[in-house]
Amino acid sequence: MSRLDSFIRRLTAQRSVLDWATAAIAALPGPVLEVGLGNGRTFDHLREKLPGRDIYAFDRADNAHPLSKPPAPFLVLGEFSVTLPAFAATHGAVAALLHCDTGSGDAAANARQAAWLSGLLPSLGRPGAIVLSDQRLGHERLQLLQAPVDIPPDRYFLYSIT
Amino acid sequence: MSRLDSFIRRLTAQRSVLDWATAAIAALPGPVLEVGLGNGRTFDHLREKLPGRDIYAFDRADNAHPLSKPPAPFLVLGEFSVTLPAFAATHGAVAALLHCDTGSGDAAANARQAAWLSGLLPSLGRPGAIVLSDQRLGHERLQLLQAPVDIPPDRYFLYSIT
Repeated sequence: MSRLDSFIRRLTAQRSVLDWATAAIAALPGPVLEVGLGNGRTFDHLREKLPGRDIYAFDRADNAHPLSKPPAPFLVLGEFSVTLPAFAATHGAVAALLHCDTGSGDAAANARQAAWLSGLLPSLGRPGAIVLSDQRLGHERLQLLQAPVDIPPDRYFLYSIT
Repeated sequence: MSRLDSFIRRLTAQRSVLDWATAAIAALPGPVLEVGLGNGRTFDHLREKLPGRDIYAFDRADNAHPLSKPPAPFLVLGEFSVTLPAFAATHGAVAALLHCDTGSGDAAANARQAAWLSGLLPSLGRPGAIVLSDQRLGHERLQLLQAPVDIPPDRYFLYSIT
């Protein structure tokens, strides 16, 4: 499998997971949190699949395509370790879906981030909310879900907030 | 169609075109010229589809993934306007396949580049060689081919060197 094949497979799996999750939360109220906006392609996909739903996008800096980012009140820039607790303090555990695409090439940094993010997510999402993460998480209120679609191993980790 | 959908569609079309072209040149000797290496994903795909075939990759600078670039003699860094004529002078019109992914966000610069690239390609590829280009080209020895697969309009232009 070439790196082009692998890239297409990864993006297609990402789309399948997003499509599943957006359908699964249809009856669950609350905003979506896009943690790691990046280029904005997944934000754009979430926006298309969830018309009318508030989507907050978090990132360290704004590197998004001009057509793929939310208007100012929904674009939250800064370190996740600051912006996410601030959001929880203001809004409470309201999110219906949290999509976390936060990993970098630094495995040790990813593991540290996943540890504190795991503890933070239950303060952001309501019971029944779905968490999609590119990093393996661990917390007593994060129940691992079986991927509903064929995705490359360790590409996505799916949880429900209990 | 979200930007994620559009991106997947574009990459899938790219792969389909590469798969078609690599099969189409099976009986035509000569190296492949990858003009615009970038990340190296398409180089990796070409290498996988054409084992044993020399592939020269050209780019202004080396931004490729470590696993997706050719060894030194096949990696040619510098301005295309210098490296491609130099290749033609050394090797002659030997290539069987030329994949040109050279466009930037600057439409005027792309048009200028496509103009002189059009004139240069017949000095690089043998008669019957296939040219895949992300830019529309024009030269009496470049015969436009109908795309053999469903690709987004204006994403790829296919030519045969007459």
